[in-house]
Amino acid sequence: MTREQLFEQILKKKSYLCVGLDTDPKKLPQHLLDTEDPVFEFNRQIIEATADLCVAYKPNIAFYEAQGPQGWVSLEKTLQVIPENIFTIADAKRGDIGNTSELYARAFFETMQFDSVTVAPYMGADSVKPFLVQEGKWVILLALTSNAGSQDFQMLRLEDGNEEYLFEQVLRTSATWATADQMMYVIGATQAEYVQRVRKLVPNHFLLVPGVGAQGGSLEDISRLGMNQQCGLLVNSARGIIYASSGRDFAAKAREAALAVQREMEVCLEQYVRHV
Amino acid sequence: MTREQLFEQILKKKSYLCVGLDTDPKKLPQHLLDTEDPVFEFNRQIIEATADLCVAYKPNIAFYEAQGPQGWVSLEKTLQVIPENIFTIADAKRGDIGNTSELYARAFFETMQFDSVTVAPYMGADSVKPFLVQEGKWVILLALTSNAGSQDFQMLRLEDGNEEYLFEQVLRTSATWATADQMMYVIGATQAEYVQRVRKLVPNHFLLVPGVGAQGGSLEDISRLGMNQQCGLLVNSARGIIYASSGRDFAAKAREAALAVQREMEVCLEQYVRHV
Repeated sequence: MTREQLFEQILKKKSYLCVGLDTDPKKLPQHLLDTEDPVFEFNRQIIEATADLCVAYKPNIAFYEAQGPQGWVSLEKTLQVIPENIFTIADAKRGDIGNTSELYARAFFETMQFDSVTVAPYMGADSVKPFLVQEGKWVILLALTSNAGSQDFQMLRLEDGNEEYLFEQVLRTSATWATADQMMYVIGATQAEYVQRVRKLVPNHFLLVPGVGAQGGSLEDISRLGMNQQCGLLVNSARGIIYASSGRDFAAKAREAALAVQREMEVCLEQYVRHV
Repeated sequence: MTREQLFEQILKKKSYLCVGLDTDPKKLPQHLLDTEDPVFEFNRQIIEATADLCVAYKPNIAFYEAQGPQGWVSLEKTLQVIPENIFTIADAKRGDIGNTSELYARAFFETMQFDSVTVAPYMGADSVKPFLVQEGKWVILLALTSNAGSQDFQMLRLEDGNEEYLFEQVLRTSATWATADQMMYVIGATQAEYVQRVRKLVPNHFLLVPGVGAQGGSLEDISRLGMNQQCGLLVNSARGIIYASSGRDFAAKAREAALAVQREMEVCLEQYVRHV
């Protein structure tokens, strides 16, 4: 999917919501446990209930990997029921030496048909570039994450005369590897105070924003500070939507939760994106 | 496996060789392609031919993941034929927010029975610590990798008054998260000039060393500079061993290649480890 196509979807749906399919087999509604593939059945119903309210789905790969081979089967089947016009993110946080990153790229872009994959920057250019070979396929690079551990290394100051943080150097360097048409960045919603520094370095890139809701980030803050003229944000919500209810009404309740977020997003889009 | 048990194996076998099971389905000998699971069959014969010459096996997970669910089946079967007294490394380079890293830990330590998993440090303490919950299970943290991209971020100088590199701060900080009984570090063989700086910060930890052979690192250099009193090194070789021949004799040739490395290691052990 191209950047223009993604922005079109955002305008059409008045939403920049990404639904996190972090499906934990231990949290499934009781009545699904008898189905052939409960994880897939849960995802299928969540997708059916929310597809008109969101522009992206993001399965965190760990949840599937933890199930062994069956988890990968559930994931592949899930991919197949996501409508074509919805952006898909393999939240895998991969990254390895060149010939190995190529294999990960093959796994997520070919074996499965994801539009994008999250990648960790620590190993540098040749660990990231193998994911950048196909048009319409994206790298979403970790820059400033939402967790407490982001303080340990991402926020270290560099001896460069500019008092820059490591995450700023990651943005600056990686922005030379690909344009805003192939690269996005993970910026945690809990890091709103740094979003202006991010936007100075990457004004046009989309940011994938986890950490709204359960982790305490504010949708209003991140939208006000982070939006650009093409929206430029995908805000992820997982637990708040997919586990809105643990009963037979889980899909209906997920829809209600997604709708509440979408309405808030509609207001932010009108307020902060000039095109709308 | 404990550090003492690993050192015992090293002394017994006079080897600190780790064989990288980076099994690419496109490089398999022709005659294996008719077997039920060619990747597994290849691994099984490689393991049978080399198990007395090495102390560790390290499948790079990308090679299996790229095959979809079948790849995970081949990987699980491979794990089952590795003898108990050989250390196993899931070279996965994972790392995510706390509750997600827990799932990766479950995938590699429980669903599969690996002794260790390689982890990327960028997301900090709470992305690494979930891998540290079980005695005898190890984190092998990326510190200074063997690839060209290691220059991009790992070698950035920090504004800390000590002119330290980022990888040194990664060692310094992460060494407070776990002792040398649960943590190892990835240090590329191509980085021999920095190994003394590494040993100042982590004198007792095992180092997992890729990059000897195809990538140009020297076994002698890394052994002289990096060994400690418990050896403290696992040196990985993949392509040089598993693809020593592409014919019917692949396993016999792999054994010859492993034997040549083991003999060089025996000399280094006698020369640089006082216990031996």
